[in-house]
Amino acid sequence: MARMARIAPLSGFPEWSPSERLVEAEVLSTLRRVFTLHGYGEIETRAVEPIDRLAGDSDAAKEIYALSRLRAEPGADASLGLHFDLTVPFARYVEERQAQLAFPFRRYQIQKVWRGERPQEGRFREFYQADIDVVARDVLPAHFEAEVPLVMARALAELTAAVGVPRAVMSMNDRRLVEGFYAGVGITDIPGALRSVDKLSKIGPDGVRKELEAAGVAATAAEAVLALAAIRTPDASFATQAQALWQQAGAQGELPHETFNAGVAALTALVETVNAAVPGIAYADLSIARGLDYYTGAVYETVLEGHEDLGSVCSGGRYDSLVGGGGFPGVGMSIGVTRVVSRLLSAGLASGSRAVPSAVYVAVIDEESRAASNAVAEALRARGIACEVAATAAKFGKQIQSADKRGIPFVWFPSADGHEVKDIRSGEQVTADPQSWEPPASDLKAGVVRG
Amino acid sequence: MARMARIAPLSGFPEWSPSERLVEAEVLSTLRRVFTLHGYGEIETRAVEPIDRLAGDSDAAKEIYALSRLRAEPGADASLGLHFDLTVPFARYVEERQAQLAFPFRRYQIQKVWRGERPQEGRFREFYQADIDVVARDVLPAHFEAEVPLVMARALAELTAAVGVPRAVMSMNDRRLVEGFYAGVGITDIPGALRSVDKLSKIGPDGVRKELEAAGVAATAAEAVLALAAIRTPDASFATQAQALWQQAGAQGELPHETFNAGVAALTALVETVNAAVPGIAYADLSIARGLDYYTGAVYETVLEGHEDLGSVCSGGRYDSLVGGGGFPGVGMSIGVTRVVSRLLSAGLASGSRAVPSAVYVAVIDEESRAASNAVAEALRARGIACEVAATAAKFGKQIQSADKRGIPFVWFPSADGHEVKDIRSGEQVTADPQSWEPPASDLKAGVVRG
Repeated sequence: MARMARIAPLSGFPEWSPSERLVEAEVLSTLRRVFTLHGYGEIETRAVEPIDRLAGDSDAAKEIYALSRLRAEPGADASLGLHFDLTVPFARYVEERQAQLAFPFRRYQIQKVWRGERPQEGRFREFYQADIDVVARDVLPAHFEAEVPLVMARALAELTAAVGVPRAVMSMNDRRLVEGFYAGVGITDIPGALRSVDKLSKIGPDGVRKELEAAGVAATAAEAVLALAAIRTPDASFATQAQALWQQAGAQGELPHETFNAGVAALTALVETVNAAVPGIAYADLSIARGLDYYTGAVYETVLEGHEDLGSVCSGGRYDSLVGGGGFPGVGMSIGVTRVVSRLLSAGLASGSRAVPSAVYVAVIDEESRAASNAVAEALRARGIACEVAATAAKFGKQIQSADKRGIPFVWFPSADGHEVKDIRSGEQVTADPQSWEPPASDLKAGVVRG
Repeated sequence: MARMARIAPLSGFPEWSPSERLVEAEVLSTLRRVFTLHGYGEIETRAVEPIDRLAGDSDAAKEIYALSRLRAEPGADASLGLHFDLTVPFARYVEERQAQLAFPFRRYQIQKVWRGERPQEGRFREFYQADIDVVARDVLPAHFEAEVPLVMARALAELTAAVGVPRAVMSMNDRRLVEGFYAGVGITDIPGALRSVDKLSKIGPDGVRKELEAAGVAATAAEAVLALAAIRTPDASFATQAQALWQQAGAQGELPHETFNAGVAALTALVETVNAAVPGIAYADLSIARGLDYYTGAVYETVLEGHEDLGSVCSGGRYDSLVGGGGFPGVGMSIGVTRVVSRLLSAGLASGSRAVPSAVYVAVIDEESRAASNAVAEALRARGIACEVAATAAKFGKQIQSADKRGIPFVWFPSADGHEVKDIRSGEQVTADPQSWEPPASDLKAGVVRG
């Protein structure tokens, strides 16, 4: 292949070594297992969508990678771009297949997405997302707003157990609580106020206050907004504080109060349900606003303890309709898999146990007897033991070195007089039968080492 | 999400339903298992490469999808394109990491690739490839030319067992055998002659003869080339025929004969080794030329019995160097996963056993007792039984219908007085304990149904 010109690592396009990939693969298989247990079926969608569908969200448009054929005939291709999330393609998938799908439709989707944003720690141009959504036809009962974060809470807890992902803390809010309150204190541009509050962690209370006042929000109302955003409890006690604040701020209006109360009740049920299943993970946090306009009920964000600088690793919320025409309410959350895996690797929290899958390196005495070594390998593989056969009939010392370099724990020496297998870590060598010998369970498969 | 404008299925970009995806997922996990058992570690590479690296192969250039940022600042991005195979990115990966990798390096890689070619049955614009390669530093022993097709032969046999992929027939040749023979009968433009013979199945012997003669090949030499290409045996008996043809065609020259003999010996070992492991799969077929210039030893193609119209589903060969500078000889093969899965589905050879992963649909008596239904679901999930809880407390008849629509075999009726579970296929209903009840093994997981 003479076509190679130069090599150029591309910023924002992470690639793992074979042992690092073990960590990512374990994360993905853990997610699949948990999602499947909860009744979520898998789909994959094509990587490309028509640009006009992708570009509808103006914030994302500048990050879209558009496609063109390198030597296209004029007008040969539709105007296509790479998807930047899994929601836009999922919406199109549901719209196309609405007649075939059974609703409520639970699906998970784990695929790479592409965003042409400036690369930085935790931000990539190509990365894995893992999404779950439940989408209903016409009516989505409220209990799904607890189910989706509960599934994600379990998934994150399993990731902690499996690969040492730091403990997750999920912050939850309800759009109705916030919108009812804002209306009650006299704010008219509620989406504008939400966008300002969404910047709280970046620009601080003073920054938010300035933005609100610049937008014409009264000083007392701005204070009330900030007081609401300061409420954060690990249980349902936020409700008492929020109700007290409603009184104290002089909020009023029958409809706003109804909306506010509906939000308080929903968030109470949400936090209690999730914490009952995964104790301590869920917080009511009335500062959570989520910039996206389409959320209408519960909203969620998740940080990893001690790694708050990564930002949210698992976010989402309830929306009124997945598709443009309406009628498909749903709840969804998305894990930033690559963001999590990248931190696991860079912080030394997890690594692959060895560079290759083989548990056994079968030595070759001489090229004439390679078939005997192959036969040993076949016998081991038939019982699920991964192995490789030595590349050359070098001196045994050199063959052991080759195994050691790959992190393979056992070297097998075939012999018609009686096979032997050596644990090259301890040096212990024993006679063994290829039809029955087994490595310790901990050595059988290449996996993830914590810490 | 109001950004949706229209829906447009895109020709050449296949998408599966959730139950069709089960078939694809089973194919992928079978391949992973076989590759892993043989010591092949997994990597994934980024989807994009610099255009100048991709476009080196002029035939592929017109099929490349180039990327641009939709609203890029001028000069913001390097000129990037989507990979059209997994070999170009793998070569770059090895070149970048040659200091860290242990050679011979066995890797597998399963990713989507993109080609802007005209879509037709079995040809896609986005599709999964599954590649294995062994790459050495400087010297690659000949036995790897048997190992790689052997791993693929096992993988294909496992796919037959797991999901009903039709029996595979692997045709093998050796470039040295052909090149030595061509040189022996006086052909000077050997790559040109190989390209003509590669079209044999498309343009027939007369077409090949015309092309060869137009290129200045003598009529007797063209006949000899066609006679060689007609040799096909399910064992090593091709060798006798090829040696006889060497004599009969009056081939000559010491170096060509040496090359020819080396190829005959290598192909003999290859066919015998692979057939010893997976009886009947390998044929010596001296018409196999493979268009790509970089193969230098064994070449392989694979068709599925009764589905020869699909073309080769698993091809590859031995090359002298993976990277431009030389020094990285290897052997690789690639399975066209989407081509195989698409045929399995369209020919009705395999389908998903149900539309959702759940084995159990937990009914809800009334909304007040939803927590009790959730508790049943949690008890089942803790023992690995996938389930979902009813969306609403509708009449039991309606809840059973919902389960039936999804293909869920069991409906659970929670009760403080004694739970009951109904097999909705037989109608049989029994008392059951959520801590111990298990579905039959065949119902536990959604899987693949043959035929």
